[in-house]
Amino acid sequence: MLQTLKTDKPFTTESGYTFPGIEIGYHVYGDLQSGSPVVWVCHALTGNSDPLEWWPNLCGPGKTFDPRYHTIVCANVLGSCYGTTGATSINPTTGKPFLLEFPLITIRDMVQAHELLRQHLNIESIEVIIGASLGAFQGMEWCIMNPGLIKHLVFIAAGARTSPWAKAFNEAQRMALEADPTFLENTPEGGKAGLRAARAIGMISYRSFEAFDKTQYDPEEDKMEGFNAPSYLRYQGNKLVNRYSPYAYLTITRAFDSHDVGRHRGGVKKALGRITTKVHCVSTESDILFPVEEVKQVAEMIPHATHHMMKSLYGHDGFLVEKEGLEQIIQSTNWDENFFQDPEFLKIKNDSSLND
Amino acid sequence: MLQTLKTDKPFTTESGYTFPGIEIGYHVYGDLQSGSPVVWVCHALTGNSDPLEWWPNLCGPGKTFDPRYHTIVCANVLGSCYGTTGATSINPTTGKPFLLEFPLITIRDMVQAHELLRQHLNIESIEVIIGASLGAFQGMEWCIMNPGLIKHLVFIAAGARTSPWAKAFNEAQRMALEADPTFLENTPEGGKAGLRAARAIGMISYRSFEAFDKTQYDPEEDKMEGFNAPSYLRYQGNKLVNRYSPYAYLTITRAFDSHDVGRHRGGVKKALGRITTKVHCVSTESDILFPVEEVKQVAEMIPHATHHMMKSLYGHDGFLVEKEGLEQIIQSTNWDENFFQDPEFLKIKNDSSLND
Repeated sequence: MLQTLKTDKPFTTESGYTFPGIEIGYHVYGDLQSGSPVVWVCHALTGNSDPLEWWPNLCGPGKTFDPRYHTIVCANVLGSCYGTTGATSINPTTGKPFLLEFPLITIRDMVQAHELLRQHLNIESIEVIIGASLGAFQGMEWCIMNPGLIKHLVFIAAGARTSPWAKAFNEAQRMALEADPTFLENTPEGGKAGLRAARAIGMISYRSFEAFDKTQYDPEEDKMEGFNAPSYLRYQGNKLVNRYSPYAYLTITRAFDSHDVGRHRGGVKKALGRITTKVHCVSTESDILFPVEEVKQVAEMIPHATHHMMKSLYGHDGFLVEKEGLEQIIQSTNWDENFFQDPEFLKIKNDSSLND
Repeated sequence: MLQTLKTDKPFTTESGYTFPGIEIGYHVYGDLQSGSPVVWVCHALTGNSDPLEWWPNLCGPGKTFDPRYHTIVCANVLGSCYGTTGATSINPTTGKPFLLEFPLITIRDMVQAHELLRQHLNIESIEVIIGASLGAFQGMEWCIMNPGLIKHLVFIAAGARTSPWAKAFNEAQRMALEADPTFLENTPEGGKAGLRAARAIGMISYRSFEAFDKTQYDPEEDKMEGFNAPSYLRYQGNKLVNRYSPYAYLTITRAFDSHDVGRHRGGVKKALGRITTKVHCVSTESDILFPVEEVKQVAEMIPHATHHMMKSLYGHDGFLVEKEGLEQIIQSTNWDENFFQDPEFLKIKNDSSLND
């Protein structure tokens, strides 16, 4: 069930904008009072705060993260449009939605909001943070911003500083948004055609040559037009338009670009060197957005880190598509004794051949 | 100098549309009457008919293809906007530019137009056709459509049937065009913002993670916005908008998608098996649009073909960026005795270690 925390203290962003207070939409699964280990899930670009909905391969009864044994928490990120203050929220100084006037948000701002929720929920220790892509960015920032809070971080398909390549993919998407003049008219209904095209670009970056070949190949010979891959992209574009705000999309892609754990900390290497959390970095073989080598280099700069490459055709989206591969990597890592209660998981856990 | 051939016979496209006649813009460098070997260059997506302008690494005095020893011919492709009948041409039945009403053009239509020019120029034999990407598509089709005409084909960064992945990149670009409602207004000035975004998507597909990292890395620490890669994409988008028609872009990307040498020939394998031309396939190590494996598989299906992988960070655009690597691959191949007149080239040619 979506819950909302409304804060009444001023919230100042890294870019210097002050909200009088913010709202944070979140889900808690499991029994927070029981003392069961806290698993904090951070969602990616257009996700919401319900990981049982969008990450059913990993979260739910009988899954790796199981509300029967763990307390699963997830908050919608600042700037999004699923319950947390974002571009479609009402700007209290104008009485109208922020839209294009929403301030620049960074990953640190998202984590600052997570901290408020954590304190509200009286969580003193987090057993594991898990996230992929923008979700992993948040986990990594949180380990640096609050050392000692987090025991494990599962850091999937991400880097420590957004690469020029990933920024280019985001900028092409923002250019598609701006190509739609209704977006610039700054009304809640604006920007739908732009978002449709932006999502199509995003979908390419989340997949791979092989994934498109496998799922969108045209078996019919002799066609000159009307192919599958184009229809698929349109379908995906329309799907996002029906559930997400183009203005939130602008906000979140800018936050994505801003990701740099080294900012005002003497660079990436120094910042990563300070991490005391055990970090389990997972790359995906066919990920074009965060290539294996990038993830591997991040792992090498963190004192207590391992790197695991997951086999998958599905590129950056591999973390959503693959079940067994990701389960095995996560469960084979060096958790505290009682983390996994289910004997089936313990069996996998003790198969040391899965360790990198 | 741009020359124009105006044909007065009906020209029917593969999709069944008939033009009363077409115009073909072309360049010839060298002495067509001298009997020097003919090098026919086929341009890629947004190219023009002047290879000395856009391929100076390979074409020009002192270069691999040298107008002093070779006759270099290049024609602007059907559907483009550099002198050949295309979307911005006047539709004789309405007296207005075709724009969105321009018919579906295929690679075979482009080659059919090249054939008309070849006959007009009285060229009976082509020593070598060279092209990359859409240019290579044309060369391959021509080898199949007119067996015996072409001795060598240098087939760079391309496939035999456009992959779902490449079609997805093209569709995202067309969705960006359509996100701009001025494009749908169907006036010659329409679609500029859409084309800008489309080009940004294209540029990503032509480069690589490593190329962006090398050329668009932000050396400044501590930034939250205003990065290099986004500015670079905007610059590239604007550059194309100043020289190319959004409507021609639609036409040419649709033609790109239509590429399938197997259409009405019993499939790709059968069609490639009929090629009698010696085909020199060149892939680029970091090409995400036409991965090495795809080019290699094409070479394996052609009776007289070799495959060479060019080392380059620059992905699909490697053919434009790299000079020595491409020169060496081309010059090391098994040409007829007197093709390269320059002793420097013959020296390289005889260094057999360069052969695959």
